Amino acid sequence: MIIDCHGHYTTAPPALAAWRDRQVAALDGARPGPVRADLRISDDELRETIEPNQLRLMDERGIDLTVFSPRASFMAHHVGGFGTSAAWAAICNELCHRVSALYPERFAPAAMLPQSPGVDPATCLPELTRCVEEYGAVALNLNPDPSGGHWTAPPLTDRSWYPIYEKMVEYDVPAMVHVSTSVNPAFHTTGAHYLNADTTVFMQLVQGDLFADFPTLRLIIPHGGGAVPYHWGRFRGLAMALGKPELEEHVLNNVFFDTCVYHQPGSNLLFDVIPARNILFASEMIGAVRSVDPRTGHPFDDTRRYAEAADLPEADWAAIREHNARAVYPRLDALLKGQGR
Amino acid sequence: MIIDCHGHYTTAPPALAAWRDRQVAALDGARPGPVRADLRISDDELRETIEPNQLRLMDERGIDLTVFSPRASFMAHHVGGFGTSAAWAAICNELCHRVSALYPERFAPAAMLPQSPGVDPATCLPELTRCVEEYGAVALNLNPDPSGGHWTAPPLTDRSWYPIYEKMVEYDVPAMVHVSTSVNPAFHTTGAHYLNADTTVFMQLVQGDLFADFPTLRLIIPHGGGAVPYHWGRFRGLAMALGKPELEEHVLNNVFFDTCVYHQPGSNLLFDVIPARNILFASEMIGAVRSVDPRTGHPFDDTRRYAEAADLPEADWAAIREHNARAVYPRLDALLKGQGR
Repeated sequence: MIIDCHGHYTTAPPALAAWRDRQVAALDGARPGPVRADLRISDDELRETIEPNQLRLMDERGIDLTVFSPRASFMAHHVGGFGTSAAWAAICNELCHRVSALYPERFAPAAMLPQSPGVDPATCLPELTRCVEEYGAVALNLNPDPSGGHWTAPPLTDRSWYPIYEKMVEYDVPAMVHVSTSVNPAFHTTGAHYLNADTTVFMQLVQGDLFADFPTLRLIIPHGGGAVPYHWGRFRGLAMALGKPELEEHVLNNVFFDTCVYHQPGSNLLFDVIPARNILFASEMIGAVRSVDPRTGHPFDDTRRYAEAADLPEADWAAIREHNARAVYPRLDALLKGQGR
Repeated sequence: MIIDCHGHYTTAPPALAAWRDRQVAALDGARPGPVRADLRISDDELRETIEPNQLRLMDERGIDLTVFSPRASFMAHHVGGFGTSAAWAAICNELCHRVSALYPERFAPAAMLPQSPGVDPATCLPELTRCVEEYGAVALNLNPDPSGGHWTAPPLTDRSWYPIYEKMVEYDVPAMVHVSTSVNPAFHTTGAHYLNADTTVFMQLVQGDLFADFPTLRLIIPHGGGAVPYHWGRFRGLAMALGKPELEEHVLNNVFFDTCVYHQPGSNLLFDVIPARNILFASEMIGAVRSVDPRTGHPFDDTRRYAEAADLPEADWAAIREHNARAVYPRLDALLKGQGR
């Protein structure tokens, strides 16, 4: 089977964005904000946004299941304070849970956290707990820069993040490290900020020794690891200069890269440089790049084509498309086994 | 011949750092700062820092000439104000000029600018003019983030940068887009900030239409273009979504990538994805990664090995190692021709 570990609910019904608009408009305190019950989206509306979009493409591309989380660019943790993020995360996570409940063999939910700039990450634990225990979340998305491009948070190796990691270890759920929209005019959201965050966090992990404290913690770095595989020699050399072991030993027991690289040479490089056990199939569709490449006639984000054209040994491709995900996301594996898969 | 378009004076005599330390220590106004004449470095001292270092490695690796600019991480434009940067840039540029004068067939100077956060880039023009007219600078380094990792400057497509571009066009000198040290704890300087800046600026150029206003402006994006070649499909798709032409037409008449990618697969990708006319040989030695790769037995930054092992057509390799640099840096070409080369 093929598991896509990186999907977001980018096609949610317009009522969701309208609710958010009302929430943001109320931040000045001049009028009351919406309450959760103000958002009414029927199951049919959910189906109408999923079936012609993600589910259609999954069927066309032979993707069996997608790990499905709220739209990354809409997390927008920089907006308002903790209460704002808490209400927004609760609503977004519930929708992904409902989609997964409607299509239990096609989607498994992953949670966004109610992060907020300058607020203790421990405040995210109730939502994290709820998503895992009540919604069956198999993973979470962790934003290393809740400020939206101002990078005011400490590195992910800082102890302030440890409450999140302790809960992740307790639940045995991994986190995808994923920023949200950039409000810094220097950074285009999907063309710079996302890739920069991937590169930045990998280097934070190289600099630190986080996995000495959390040997079973697992982090997925999306978008093919940002600049990392392309500059693997640079990172190996920098690790040496910092007195760290080789990257395989230092971070690759805990860090995984997805395959969201949208052309053949880049995909080939990923498969060439990074051990197969550290790669997870993903497309992030419907996402940042939705068009058809006029040079190939295929969608840029149809990453299965690149993986298959890379002529990987079958064992590697099986690991990348399925077995690694089962190992990195044990709750997904349990879910699948419960379905007899 | 082989031209290395990316070298910094990372081995300057300790007196330089001592002068800077005194300058920084005086920023609180409690004591007077050093004046330019306080820095005394003899020609012999310059030779002693160059001959066993850059020049030795250039000889070992068969590099004929290096475009030589002040140490990037020491530019530190975030320190003090314009006056601080102006005094510091003047001193650093003079040293690179002196090195080039000592070894006129081996080094050609490139200038750092006295940038300062929040200060009009036009204030850099006197130093730029001096470096080109008096020192024979063949290029300059332009820092898109003088804040040192806080990214408070507008994108390089903003009109506030135009005075720099107008002067570059007038002198027909290119700029390497190069940040300096990161004071943001989220960003490791050489493992994250440098690569992020490369990616960020490329996307700024994709978003904008800078080269419609400056058709002859030329920018070099170092470190192999950050994440860009690895994610070339992503950038092509994002350009399409923004209604821009293909990247070859939109930016590749004006943007060039260097070869500072420190392993074979990454170098291969660069040569595979980016047209040969847009690649300039470089190593950035002695720089961020100074060690020997235990897996190859060769220095990570010996980029000539990667280029030669890539088995490029001879015309492409000749373009990358020499002819492109002559075209992108016309004042370097004139310098070489004046030497009968």
